[in-house]
This record gives sequence, structure tokens and C-alpha cells, in this order.
Amino acid sequence: MRVAIKGVGTTSFGKQPETHPSELIWRATAEALADAGVDRVDSVFVGTVFGAPGVAQRALHAMGICGVPIITVENACASGTTALHEAIVAVDSGRYENVLAVGIEKMTDSFSGAIHPEPTDAEGRAGLALPSLYAMAASRYQALYGLTDAELAMVAVKNHGHATQNPRAHHRTPHTVEEVLASRMIADPLTLLQCCPIADGAAAAVVGRPGSGAHVAVRGSALRSGAPWDHNSAHVWGFDLIAATAADAYAMASVGPGDLDVIECHDAFTIGEIVTTEALGLARLGEGAGLLHSGHTRLGGPQVVNPSGGLLSRGHPLGATGLAQLAEIVWQLRGQAGGRQTAAPRWGAVETMGGGVSGLDGNACVVVLLEKVGR
Amino acid sequence: MRVAIKGVGTTSFGKQPETHPSELIWRATAEALADAGVDRVDSVFVGTVFGAPGVAQRALHAMGICGVPIITVENACASGTTALHEAIVAVDSGRYENVLAVGIEKMTDSFSGAIHPEPTDAEGRAGLALPSLYAMAASRYQALYGLTDAELAMVAVKNHGHATQNPRAHHRTPHTVEEVLASRMIADPLTLLQCCPIADGAAAAVVGRPGSGAHVAVRGSALRSGAPWDHNSAHVWGFDLIAATAADAYAMASVGPGDLDVIECHDAFTIGEIVTTEALGLARLGEGAGLLHSGHTRLGGPQVVNPSGGLLSRGHPLGATGLAQLAEIVWQLRGQAGGRQTAAPRWGAVETMGGGVSGLDGNACVVVLLEKVGR
Repeated sequence: MRVAIKGVGTTSFGKQPETHPSELIWRATAEALADAGVDRVDSVFVGTVFGAPGVAQRALHAMGICGVPIITVENACASGTTALHEAIVAVDSGRYENVLAVGIEKMTDSFSGAIHPEPTDAEGRAGLALPSLYAMAASRYQALYGLTDAELAMVAVKNHGHATQNPRAHHRTPHTVEEVLASRMIADPLTLLQCCPIADGAAAAVVGRPGSGAHVAVRGSALRSGAPWDHNSAHVWGFDLIAATAADAYAMASVGPGDLDVIECHDAFTIGEIVTTEALGLARLGEGAGLLHSGHTRLGGPQVVNPSGGLLSRGHPLGATGLAQLAEIVWQLRGQAGGRQTAAPRWGAVETMGGGVSGLDGNACVVVLLEKVGR
Repeated sequence: MRVAIKGVGTTSFGKQPETHPSELIWRATAEALADAGVDRVDSVFVGTVFGAPGVAQRALHAMGICGVPIITVENACASGTTALHEAIVAVDSGRYENVLAVGIEKMTDSFSGAIHPEPTDAEGRAGLALPSLYAMAASRYQALYGLTDAELAMVAVKNHGHATQNPRAHHRTPHTVEEVLASRMIADPLTLLQCCPIADGAAAAVVGRPGSGAHVAVRGSALRSGAPWDHNSAHVWGFDLIAATAADAYAMASVGPGDLDVIECHDAFTIGEIVTTEALGLARLGEGAGLLHSGHTRLGGPQVVNPSGGLLSRGHPLGATGLAQLAEIVWQLRGQAGGRQTAAPRWGAVETMGGGVSGLDGNACVVVLLEKVGR
């Protein structure tokens, strides 16, 4: 595929109830357009879950982005990455030259605490909201592979540590394993500091054809939706969908997990990162905690996971998340990541997992593989 | 383009608060798959505005439709037609072989009366909701072109009349001009019977490659998003966006308005149909009412508009509407429209207009042109 990420932009992340959604979109989009050096795009894909109908149209027309096709997409937590995927496919197929992907979520307009289940979601109403779903995956993982609570907490320690180097992160306070374990229990074994916070924010990217100079190339982009979750599966919830989507993306890019230098993945809850690093092939089944013990995925290690702080610390404004993950990988590949810069990375990956209640092993998973070209 | 509508399906439309959204999706999708004679699809685009995240994933996995990419799209009232447009583009580009487009809205889960404005929509909060927007367009049209209240009401009379022949329509009672004018005033000059009701429903289509036999071919599909609405424009609200989108579609299909035999268009309010028939080129600017006086667009006339009863009478479950419009055109082109069958139509058109508040001349407009091939 001949597709490049020409520019990226984000807001700061965190609770910003006083900021209008349009303002969030303006900041991220203006930064992405300036970064790409383009002043017009041929189409826009917008990722949002709870954004009002037309949330992006309202904002973008004030920037002169109108008259072109603007399509909002939703795929639960993978909405921003779905917008990115659709932009990549549109450029790759020759449908458009330059496409803006923008993700937005003003969570504080919709929720004060956790996301509440939909009235038509019987499992959610019965208590199987996302924290409990991930908690059950964590308990099963612990039973299958002997993971300890302290190992689970090490994911939060690592990512909260990374976020101290990210000025746009939601939470920038480091925490110890003891502090993580001592924080309020949300859904056993997941304590508060192991759950991503409610955040507002936006992120954007300009996707287009690669030029002749140095650039960040898209080598693979895969999207799958979930299958019915088989409670007799040998794997914990989520693993199969992520592994299948990653396999699609690796095949497109003709690379394997060993080639990746820096990864942003879906750590909405600590167990998510452990399962995902295994599903991406960075560790063998049941051995994800080893990556934490050895420092393999910590800043300074050979395959850094969630240098931005991840969803746990950078924050998780649903529709914006996938594009915030992308921005981090682009900055890393370009050497622009400041105090959280990983050593000369060449290959990067973005993985986002959306939803998963009501009998599915995920609403959708998206994996995008990126390579630094030139320089 | 080499794309065909291989099958269509819908639910009945109307208030059905006791019916789960999944059930609506099942009925429409099962009918479309059976009509197409396929039992698997390669991808799904879902249109919904207020549907819960994953509303379609939850329903489709029970039908065995899972593991393939499922993407939900939103474009206000044009969400279903946006899903259709994306399915058409996906097949046309060779991305997929058979794509399901499904639209769903369970309006009674979200609203008891009219759709209320979003909290971040300043114009909406000030009273400029959709009925008032269309009412202002109607007043301006009346001032510019001398349209009478009775002529406006004739749109409702025609479409309510058509709906008496549609067993799946929301409202199947005929009304006179006097009854329409005497119904409760909603937003001057639009009375209750000139405003589409709140409805629940779903509709679906299978889009794929044409076979060698008789089929309904897609000849053009255009999507545009709105521009800032210029209050000094010579035209009333909405006209420019619809006319530009229609021009795109006509150019793709190499046909003009005179070629169309049957049209489903966005009559959310009576003025909508008058403006749209002019924007589609069926009548000259300011002369849309002539189509009603002459019976040109009434069942029995040469260019029937909204034989299903339109949004006004078939009903307007937002995300489902565009695909319900498509189903009607497919049935008409195949000669399967029962008591509302138009005489041997060859060319059909679907037009849907989405949103338009907050300074835009519409969130999005989609126009799809279809031709009967063979038989």
C-alpha cells in the first residue's frame, strides 16, 4: 500500500468540561493540518461514540472544511482507529488524495462516573459493564497462568511512569505497585489506578500519498469485528479477536512481532495490555508479565509499549483514542517524542480494541502498522 | 460502476416501543439476505443516529454475521443512505464482494416527542430545531415564489395518499388539504400532518456485483456534506446542497432529471419535497408546486415522488430511512410494489438530506441513481 501519515495533532487530554467539542476538534485538526503542510482535504472520517450528530461538521465548517464528504464512524473504543482505517483505505484505493481522520469525545458531557450500560443491553444492566468484563478476564487469566495482583499492577506503574514525560497526558503522577494495589477496588482484581479515567479530547491525522522525502508509511491496516464469545475458549476474553486482527496486519506488512520497536495498545484496564502484548506476539501465551519484569516494554527497553502513558494515563476519550495512539507512534518514529522518546524506532504499531459486551469477544479491533521511511 | 442492489428488506414502520432493536435488525436483514439469495457477506455498514454503540454487532452475531468488518456510520437523517453509499463504494472499488448495509433507529427509546437539540448546539437551544429550520425555509419560499399554504399541504395529501397502498407505512390514513391545514400548528406554516412522525424501524440491502440476469444496477452514488449556510443566498435552505449532490450523481450516471421514473426523496417536512424536486431538476426554481397541481409526481403521473408515502407517512426512523427509500425504489423497478406500483419504471432515484442546524446548509446529502437492467 502507498499511504503515508502526513500530519498528526492532538489536544491535551483530561477532564475539560468547560471546553466546547468544537474547540477540541479545532485544536487537534489545526495541528494536524499544519503538521502535514496542507490546507485542504478531500474528505473527512470522524470517530466518536457519544458525540452529537454532526459534531464534526459543526466544528469543521468554521475551519473552511466543508462541501467535501464528511462521514462519522462508530466502533466503540476503536472509533478513532476505525476513522483512521477508513481514511487509509480511501487513500489506498485512490478514492481521495488527502483525507482527514479526526476523533473526538467530550466524555464529561455524557458521564460523571463510569460509562453506564445502554437500556437495551441486558448483560450491561445485569452488571456486566466494561470494568467487570475486563475484571473477569483478569481473574480467568490469573487462574490460567498464575498472574499475581502485583504483576497486574506493574502495567499501571509502567504506563503512569511513561505519562510523567507526556505533557498532554491526563494523569502525570508516578505510582508504585503498592499505591496501585491500595487504590479503591473497582472490579476485583482491578483497582482504580488500573482503570482508564473519563477524559475529554480530540486527535487528528492527515492521511495521503507518500512524498519523496522522509515520512511515516502505513504498511498494514486491519479491522475485524468480534465473534460470539465462546466461554469454553482456551483463551481469555479479547485474545482471539486481537490475535486475528494482528495476523491480518502483519500479513499485509510482511513483518512479524519481532520487528516492532514501539507500540501503542489498548490498556483501558491493566489486564488489557498483558493480553494484547501476547495477542500481538510480543510474548508467548501466559508470559506477558515477563515483559514487565524484564523491562522489555518499558521506556529504555527494546519494544516499548504505551510510551504516551496509554489509555491508563494519557487518558481515554473514546473516539479520540485511536488517533492519539497514532500521533504518539508518528512522533516516536520521527524522533519528536521528547522525554519519552524511544531509541531510533523504525516500526510502530497501533492497536485499539472496542467494546465487547453482550456475548461478543469485542465489537471491533483495529491494528495499524507504520514504518519510518528515510532520514 | 459495476454494482447492483442484490436484495432489500425492511420492517414495518411506526412506533413499536416493545420491539428490541435487535429484532428490528433481524427482520430487515433476514429479508434482504433471502431476497439476495446470499447467506454470507464480507462486510457491513450500519446507519444509525441514536443507536447504542454496537447496536448492530449485538444483533448480527446472532445471525452468524460476525468476524467481518462492521462499521457504524452517522450522518444525521442521511445515515442509512451513507451506509448504502459506503457499501456501494466498497463494492465498486473491489474492496468487498457482497456488503450488507443496514439502517436502524429505535426512536421511541430516545424520544417521546420531537428530537430535542443537543446541549452543545447553541442554535438548537435557542429554538432552531429541525421543524423551525424547515418552517423558516417554507416561509422564505412562500415569500420568494408565492407558494400558498394549501399548495404546501398538497405534498402531505399526495404522500399520505400513497401510504394507503403501503402495508408497512407508519400512517395509512388519507387526508384532505383542509385536514392537513386544520391539524395542530407545529412551526408556522408547518402543521402536524406536514411533519414526519417519530418512528421505529430498520431496513437493509445487500450490495454486490451484478450477475448476468435481470437486476437493479447502481449507476451513480454521490455524498456531499454541507457548506456554511449563506443567509444572503438566492435559494432557500437546503437547495444548494441537494442540487450539487444531484449534479454529481447525474454526471456519474450520464442521465438527467428527465430520465427518472420514480423517486424517493427527503420529505421530512412538506417544504422539503418541494425544494428537493426543484433541486433534483424535476421542476424549475419556484415551480415545484406545479408538479402537485398537474399530478406529475402523484401515483399515475410520469415521475412519481415518494410512492412509499415518504418520510411523512411511511415514517422516518432516521438511520433506517435511506435504506427504506432504497427498498421502495428496488421494489418499484422490479414491479413488486403492489397497489402503489408505478408504470414500468426504468430509472429510480433515492435522495436523503441529513441535518442542517448550526449554520450549515445540511450535514450531508446523498443521491443514489438506479437502473433496471434486463427483464
